[in-house]
Amino acid sequence: MKNNDIKSLSSACILVIGNEILSGRTEDKNINFIAKRCDKIGVSVNEVRIIPDEPKIIKDTVLTCHKIFDYVFTTGGIGPTHDDITTECIASAFNLDIEINEEALKRLKHHYRKLKVELNESRIKMAKIPKGALLNDNPVSSAPGFIVKNVYVLPGVPKILQAMFNGLEDKIKGVTNIISKNIIVHSPEGEIADFLEIIQNDYKNVSIGSYPYFRPPEVGTNIVLRSINKTLINEASIAICAKLKEYKIQFEDT
Amino acid sequence: MKNNDIKSLSSACILVIGNEILSGRTEDKNINFIAKRCDKIGVSVNEVRIIPDEPKIIKDTVLTCHKIFDYVFTTGGIGPTHDDITTECIASAFNLDIEINEEALKRLKHHYRKLKVELNESRIKMAKIPKGALLNDNPVSSAPGFIVKNVYVLPGVPKILQAMFNGLEDKIKGVTNIISKNIIVHSPEGEIADFLEIIQNDYKNVSIGSYPYFRPPEVGTNIVLRSINKTLINEASIAICAKLKEYKIQFEDT
Repeated sequence: MKNNDIKSLSSACILVIGNEILSGRTEDKNINFIAKRCDKIGVSVNEVRIIPDEPKIIKDTVLTCHKIFDYVFTTGGIGPTHDDITTECIASAFNLDIEINEEALKRLKHHYRKLKVELNESRIKMAKIPKGALLNDNPVSSAPGFIVKNVYVLPGVPKILQAMFNGLEDKIKGVTNIISKNIIVHSPEGEIADFLEIIQNDYKNVSIGSYPYFRPPEVGTNIVLRSINKTLINEASIAICAKLKEYKIQFEDT
Repeated sequence: MKNNDIKSLSSACILVIGNEILSGRTEDKNINFIAKRCDKIGVSVNEVRIIPDEPKIIKDTVLTCHKIFDYVFTTGGIGPTHDDITTECIASAFNLDIEINEEALKRLKHHYRKLKVELNESRIKMAKIPKGALLNDNPVSSAPGFIVKNVYVLPGVPKILQAMFNGLEDKIKGVTNIISKNIIVHSPEGEIADFLEIIQNDYKNVSIGSYPYFRPPEVGTNIVLRSINKTLINEASIAICAKLKEYKIQFEDT
């Protein structure tokens, strides 16, 4: 039955690197974007960590996650300033030298020439990439991300990250047929908890989640079914809807 | 000099528990709220982890973070349904029994009586709390969170979490005088990276962050200075503004 199990998908971890997220100054916008995209590709994000701009912590966390997950996506810390230290930490984690990547430098030169802006020493830093890394194209501001082993290094600025991720998706292998189904229940989850647990036990290869929403005066629950097996999703969904009718609970089967 | 160092603040970790965040179905709204509040109280959030509804992972992560950080805030998984397993995982992590907490039950009875809704078995589950835990008041929907050692257990619904956190703040000890200063620079960070690094090296007890923003056609940088020492912040800020003037770069010193 393992093939029907959502846990058998490729796994991923998102590492958000940045003091500004931890201090609350900036609200992260990348986790949800990457999570949704992975979900669509059929890669299961199993963990997210937000960590500070501290070399030892970045290095240790990258190495730990590199070993546990099929894909590691890092965000942040690849710009031109002193607090952008992701590249050197990743190179150090994998004992790689950093060198000026000629292709990256060419792209930066082209970009800044067009903008009529000087390609100074700080900006040239963005062409320094671990030796042997593959480049991730940046159609917005040219400075590339890169890939080392299973670690995909992405920028923190959402607009640039999103554009870069678009170009990456064919490099990420997932199961493309995760199916998800949503039942909106117009009652609090306390009303449905008992039979939902029984149906979850009957359908172990369907992940059944119960998510309360609270928008006074309306209180309700989203029941979300997820699986790679359409028949099982349909069967579990029919079982849930039958119970909702039996309990005379209003719902929308979307 | 350690006392002036922002790293000497009390440390905290936020543990977001929930498959719905990892799948991208729900966008987390609690990390930024808790991070901002901690920042205000003077507690430094040093890590955030988002983990799935898996008993072993929850238990191991809670124990790991309990040992590393002064405060651990968990969000999610304390509702009435089968996928709400945070309470039992935390009890198991600390070898505590779970029992009906009489005070919690009293509050639930009162709440559901007022709503004229049955307090069924699933809802009674929300009064089951690890033995000896302190309750966190829930002024919205009555079901309490709780505190075990340094682990503060909070719900996932943002409105309820926020109300609960308000009642908690006097239990959390921080340094209340973190000072932060923002300089808005109307130039990309590549223009200022060189002198910013020098000033950061001169003022090691001021954390200087550089955060590019990108709202075409406007491109700029926020420089954020943080410290518990007002004099140092002022000195570093004067040094940065002097350099910005020397470089003829437009900025707003807010």
